Amino acid sequence: MMPQKGFVRTILVETPSLTDNTADAQRLEKCLLDELCTDKIRIPLQVLKNLPSNLRSWGFKARAVLFKDRHSWILVDLLNPISNKPVLGTAVDIGTTRITMSLIDLESGQEIGEAGFDNPQAVIGPDVLARIHYSSQNTGLDELNHLVIDAVNLNMSALCKEYGYQKENIYLVTGAGNTTMTHLFLGIESFEIIKEPYIPCVNIPDTQPAGSLGLDINENGVGFLFPNIGSYFGGDLISGILFSDLDQKEDPCIMVDVGTNAEIVVGNKDWLIACAGAAGPALEGGVSKMGMTAKPGVIDQVWIDPYTRDLMIHTIDGKKPVGICGSGMIDLAASLFLSKRIDIRGKFFKPACGERLLEKDGINHFILVDENHSGTGEPICLSQVDLNSLTSSKAAMYTILEVIVKNTAGLEFEDLHKFYVAGTFGSFINPVSAISIGMLPDLHLETFEVLGNSSLGGAKVLLKNPDAFERIMKIRQSITYIELNVNQEFMNMFSGAKFYPHTDESRFPSLQNMI
Amino acid sequence: MMPQKGFVRTILVETPSLTDNTADAQRLEKCLLDELCTDKIRIPLQVLKNLPSNLRSWGFKARAVLFKDRHSWILVDLLNPISNKPVLGTAVDIGTTRITMSLIDLESGQEIGEAGFDNPQAVIGPDVLARIHYSSQNTGLDELNHLVIDAVNLNMSALCKEYGYQKENIYLVTGAGNTTMTHLFLGIESFEIIKEPYIPCVNIPDTQPAGSLGLDINENGVGFLFPNIGSYFGGDLISGILFSDLDQKEDPCIMVDVGTNAEIVVGNKDWLIACAGAAGPALEGGVSKMGMTAKPGVIDQVWIDPYTRDLMIHTIDGKKPVGICGSGMIDLAASLFLSKRIDIRGKFFKPACGERLLEKDGINHFILVDENHSGTGEPICLSQVDLNSLTSSKAAMYTILEVIVKNTAGLEFEDLHKFYVAGTFGSFINPVSAISIGMLPDLHLETFEVLGNSSLGGAKVLLKNPDAFERIMKIRQSITYIELNVNQEFMNMFSGAKFYPHTDESRFPSLQNMI
Repeated sequence: MMPQKGFVRTILVETPSLTDNTADAQRLEKCLLDELCTDKIRIPLQVLKNLPSNLRSWGFKARAVLFKDRHSWILVDLLNPISNKPVLGTAVDIGTTRITMSLIDLESGQEIGEAGFDNPQAVIGPDVLARIHYSSQNTGLDELNHLVIDAVNLNMSALCKEYGYQKENIYLVTGAGNTTMTHLFLGIESFEIIKEPYIPCVNIPDTQPAGSLGLDINENGVGFLFPNIGSYFGGDLISGILFSDLDQKEDPCIMVDVGTNAEIVVGNKDWLIACAGAAGPALEGGVSKMGMTAKPGVIDQVWIDPYTRDLMIHTIDGKKPVGICGSGMIDLAASLFLSKRIDIRGKFFKPACGERLLEKDGINHFILVDENHSGTGEPICLSQVDLNSLTSSKAAMYTILEVIVKNTAGLEFEDLHKFYVAGTFGSFINPVSAISIGMLPDLHLETFEVLGNSSLGGAKVLLKNPDAFERIMKIRQSITYIELNVNQEFMNMFSGAKFYPHTDESRFPSLQNMI
Repeated sequence: MMPQKGFVRTILVETPSLTDNTADAQRLEKCLLDELCTDKIRIPLQVLKNLPSNLRSWGFKARAVLFKDRHSWILVDLLNPISNKPVLGTAVDIGTTRITMSLIDLESGQEIGEAGFDNPQAVIGPDVLARIHYSSQNTGLDELNHLVIDAVNLNMSALCKEYGYQKENIYLVTGAGNTTMTHLFLGIESFEIIKEPYIPCVNIPDTQPAGSLGLDINENGVGFLFPNIGSYFGGDLISGILFSDLDQKEDPCIMVDVGTNAEIVVGNKDWLIACAGAAGPALEGGVSKMGMTAKPGVIDQVWIDPYTRDLMIHTIDGKKPVGICGSGMIDLAASLFLSKRIDIRGKFFKPACGERLLEKDGINHFILVDENHSGTGEPICLSQVDLNSLTSSKAAMYTILEVIVKNTAGLEFEDLHKFYVAGTFGSFINPVSAISIGMLPDLHLETFEVLGNSSLGGAKVLLKNPDAFERIMKIRQSITYIELNVNQEFMNMFSGAKFYPHTDESRFPSLQNMI
């Protein structure tokens, strides 16, 4: 027989005889231990109840649905080997703002479909802080827990229906979220996360019966949430590292996940260094807060027409422009800088901007789209205030990268074999633009790789590959988490990075031909 | 601090700090692993939910209620260290006929009270066979399961009430029963137990959340049933061995448990040999089936007046005699034999019996109590048929002892350091009488020790001593279970043992002065 790899395996239990009167459960256990090359497996009471008649009517053959936690393997359910009942799993990225899930066929490993929806906890508060505060009042924790669980159940059920499955077909749920989202999903107290000394209730949640998590899937199903490293280093990032394979690389690589927070991990199979969360005042406002959310009419790309030197735009769905999103902002800043419309300090250069620059209330505004071409009837502008904010953000990003890669890991940017950009925001950034404004280091373009939703990606990996479990635990063990120390040295580096592309131009050789 | 030994321990969790941001659950885990000198513990989600606020309001001190199974230690609940909320456990002997339970204070190890009640499954059928048959029909298994669980709940609740406790004070339930009773208690299919090749569903049940067993105790409580070795070798016997300490003896000892079946274990710390269950036609009717159940007026002791040579009787509660129980029967047979009223073949000897012997329907009847002194208005008699049955039983018992001690273990009876008599029936047997009729071997009286309900005893030991767990698993591993082979050799031995005391009188030297 081919060696089996996933969480669903066909097994053949030894038949009993008068000379071997070992109980069914113990023979099943032995068979599973051999199959899994392990020394411990838990068999739930529910599976035992009809084990004798099932084994006999199935000729001692069965389809075993399995899972794991750090304590042992777990037999989730035992199915008729000749039934073609689908065995599915759901991977969930439990984002603060948005929840994304993917339905996976656990036997083929194939993805059936994906669904995304806004985290309904937003009705309580937009961010982690507001929700934690709310959770500490009266029934707040329960309410927040039910909001997310109910929404996940509803969407899982809809996803099943859409593709012709039953929710009873789902046996495993893997979820990755930041530490607070994970706590609220588990229904456990989270308020110490934001109180000094910032202690989560749990780092490594065990696999739980789906019922005890309120998950409406197969009655024997189980749920597992990715472990975290601390209050500011969540399971979503561990999941992202798993997805990026950073923990298996020979050469050092970096992963930057720009979601609600910017999170950065650098390392290889031997070591991992990470920083995450609030990076002090430098990142206030956040890299991802730039611009508006992507929707039809939003400008997502800006470039310079090589002949006319005019600024060209692309909008989502080709609709009339209504605003600009983060990736568009970075493109715009790069275009403005490369066309010398802004100077190395990040200030609008009037002679180059010409009549596109207007002063309103003493503040310069660059008109990207005039009111006649705008979808809102108002001109779409970038003010000096917006630009300053962008400058701060790009400088913060570069400085953090410099701190972690150079000061902490003792590497040069050139030593990075791969530069993974994860997160929704990251997916749309044009690396050339980001390099042009000095937000990302000047590496070969093929070094950059977009990962997309790496948190969801890691949760999917875990559904398909039992070995991922050990990797997750090893990632947790091997990560050195550094607090960004916003001291004088940081502020000096930050000041240099606020220039376009940087006070030290030699760091951006590829720009020499462009500027 | 004194080393703590039981399942309730006061612990002090390390307080968190800015330099150690490990999660509460992981610090609790570390503390428990250190306390228990182990490498694995499971902490239930329920305990995590309010862990942060509990630990902080308790100054990071707590009372931990713990338990185990073969996979790991289990944290059952975490309590306020200054509350004096009682923490109780219930040990249950799940007998086919009668269920006995004992309520234990898990901190002091003291027994609070005991309760006994008839197994309500008797309404379905009196024995294992009838119940297993019933369990395989429609909802039979569920019905049988509910009968026993409901009765246990009812009696636990009453026991709590009687002694001023709440059922929520109960955190642990340990139960020992034969293999079928164990299966029905767990609600798992049991019909393969009686079908060739006689395979139980489970040998080693894991510790289960009380709720999943239907046990109405503390919501975080757990239940554990003793493992069995096979269909005919149940957890009650393992529990009995634990209680007898047979597995820790230097010199070989024997334990005979006469319940619904006769079960015998001989061994020491290095080896254990057991036989149990049906011993073929020789034991049909069973040793314990002799006589009636003990109740007021039942003759439980018979002896010979040393002066008059008359037979003297004692009844339970001193009431007028209404019948005779098992121990009374053995006393009676011994008295009849020692006073030569029956001969070495076990036949009434008319000249010695005198007018006490009456022939009815061609069968001799020995009148122990005449109608004038009887509580029923009828004489209380022992017929030759009764006596033959007793003779068979005593011969079967002796033969089984001989087979296991001599033929199997290769010992002489004299090598036995202790002879434990367990079971309700055994508790009342007068060893002198049993020796006199050749039922038990002729050992020094101080060799015999009455254990009482050893199955309940072992379940109590487990509640008080976590080390018992490893012993239980080791007992399971080290037992050699032998099927009694009722062959020609057995029948020859049996024939000799049907004499009073035996064809080989030299085996009973102590009788030389008495006969």
